[in-house]
Amino acid sequence: MKNSNILAVDAMGGDFGPSVVVPGALAAAQKCGAKVILVGIESAIQDVLDTLPENLKQADFSILHASQVVEMNEKPSDILRQKKDSSIQVACRLVKEGEAQAVISAGHSGACVACGMFIIGRIPGVERPCLATIMPSKTTPRLILDVGANVECKPYYLFQFGLMGSAFVRDILGYENPKVGILSIGEEEGKGTSTVKEAYDLLKAANNLNFVGNVEGRDIFIGDVDVVVCDGFVGNVALKLSEGLALSLIDILKEELLGNGFMPKIGAFLAKKAFKSLKKKIDYAEYGGAPLLGLQGISFVCHGSSNARAIENAVLMANTYIEKDTHNRLLAILKENEELTSFARSSV
Amino acid sequence: MKNSNILAVDAMGGDFGPSVVVPGALAAAQKCGAKVILVGIESAIQDVLDTLPENLKQADFSILHASQVVEMNEKPSDILRQKKDSSIQVACRLVKEGEAQAVISAGHSGACVACGMFIIGRIPGVERPCLATIMPSKTTPRLILDVGANVECKPYYLFQFGLMGSAFVRDILGYENPKVGILSIGEEEGKGTSTVKEAYDLLKAANNLNFVGNVEGRDIFIGDVDVVVCDGFVGNVALKLSEGLALSLIDILKEELLGNGFMPKIGAFLAKKAFKSLKKKIDYAEYGGAPLLGLQGISFVCHGSSNARAIENAVLMANTYIEKDTHNRLLAILKENEELTSFARSSV
Repeated sequence: MKNSNILAVDAMGGDFGPSVVVPGALAAAQKCGAKVILVGIESAIQDVLDTLPENLKQADFSILHASQVVEMNEKPSDILRQKKDSSIQVACRLVKEGEAQAVISAGHSGACVACGMFIIGRIPGVERPCLATIMPSKTTPRLILDVGANVECKPYYLFQFGLMGSAFVRDILGYENPKVGILSIGEEEGKGTSTVKEAYDLLKAANNLNFVGNVEGRDIFIGDVDVVVCDGFVGNVALKLSEGLALSLIDILKEELLGNGFMPKIGAFLAKKAFKSLKKKIDYAEYGGAPLLGLQGISFVCHGSSNARAIENAVLMANTYIEKDTHNRLLAILKENEELTSFARSSV
Repeated sequence: MKNSNILAVDAMGGDFGPSVVVPGALAAAQKCGAKVILVGIESAIQDVLDTLPENLKQADFSILHASQVVEMNEKPSDILRQKKDSSIQVACRLVKEGEAQAVISAGHSGACVACGMFIIGRIPGVERPCLATIMPSKTTPRLILDVGANVECKPYYLFQFGLMGSAFVRDILGYENPKVGILSIGEEEGKGTSTVKEAYDLLKAANNLNFVGNVEGRDIFIGDVDVVVCDGFVGNVALKLSEGLALSLIDILKEELLGNGFMPKIGAFLAKKAFKSLKKKIDYAEYGGAPLLGLQGISFVCHGSSNARAIENAVLMANTYIEKDTHNRLLAILKENEELTSFARSSV
């Protein structure tokens, strides 16, 4: 089931670098039949390859040497100027030049956004690409965007986030007529900041969009919504808060349940199993990567603490994105709403 | 242990009205020795009183008839103009006129804010009162403010929220030198919106404030911080998201643990106990009310779905607020930072 897709993977990215990226990328390549280009310091990649089982190395891959590594404390603008031979820049150039269709990185997310914008380039008419994250819920997973690429947003940015999010979940999560909501502080129309209210009006007027109006914080997990639109400040707070709260609740409950040792052995065993299953349900690694939407190429940004499975799932998702031609679906819905966007842009 | 404090309680507020407010308020009065004035439709209050045990009615209380009731879908401005004899307005006037020191309401929170601002009035120099909520965490509870009174904030509003929050938790939660952080999307100075960055500079320069810099979403639950400052939009999203996520996680885990019936009986019993204990730990009713800080009097706003225990705890907290003279501590820290505030206000 080999296919012709070529995916550029930033092998140096993330807290664990090549040691998790290389096996994750190869596992994905083997599963989906795409070719991966491992971009980074060749010797470091080779060292990891030497430790991997032979069958994993049957995957279709190549190594592209990139001499520089991005540190987490560097500024995106400095990285752009001074790290032209970093793995993330080289990988993005592969996409720009058509030698790969997608880039996947668990590195410095600010650098991923900057390299996406300035190397791969934006879709004409899209002023700000955004980072979208799939959030688990009790029922179906939902997409929240933006989660950090744009701290301050104009109404038509939010409008375009909604359009692009809708196109994405349709293909990638398979929702036929995805419900798109805008995050606010009350369900009624007219609630929220002036930016949210203007974006509301645009989303309501959009073509080919199933806009369901305002949603509240609680709806991110329990509401009847598939795509939640917000600015990158609110989205980033929401994302990190969710991580913190989930970990903290699980910790408290584990202590309550298991800490005292009173739980009978079989009960404790079942409790541990339940926690494991819950963790799997809310584990970001299940979805692996956050798409950077609005670029002329495909880019997925992974959590810095990604494990091999998260990388694998991100690479698989990038492959699906290509297979389903999601990029063209995205272009189509943006085009269908071009006039409305221009109007909103000119009235800012 | 009778004291001379008089607390006005909006008996008609909340989803359950007098049926929970009256017993909650009386229980608190009995515990702390304050007098409560039950404000609302006299016959409705009397009906509830008739059902209560005699010993609860030993509490020091009186009834003040107010003929109008506020509906949840009314606009705060309409309530101010058209519902002059509503329980919330009458209760706020008692505070304004010095006949009570505090008002406690589980009613329409927008109306509570509006009546607080326009009837009780703001502390001179405070442009926007804010709503502060105590959030539980794995370790110590923390205060987050604003959680909805101000959707759009100027930097010096956020600055004053930090000052007032610090004064509040010092007395009410007993933190000697409370750590105040501002919610942003990165720990480093310079992260966040322009408003957050300007507020950061003000908080950093503040007198008598233990400012710890930026905190992130996850820190609300697991960070080393006592007071988290944010605008009312972000705070409201964070609050509701936390409620939704907590409920949803508990639901999922309950299903995993108990749904299949495989858990041995004693294990299931212990699991149920653990859930109960967790719920208590994260239950808003433990703290009862959210103080509306920045007014010339004391006002606590309770969750609409408050039960009698939440009302009781809110009334007790209002009593503590008076006992500890928190209002003067608040005035003091505002005064100590008056010049900085004026400077920030003039440079907007």
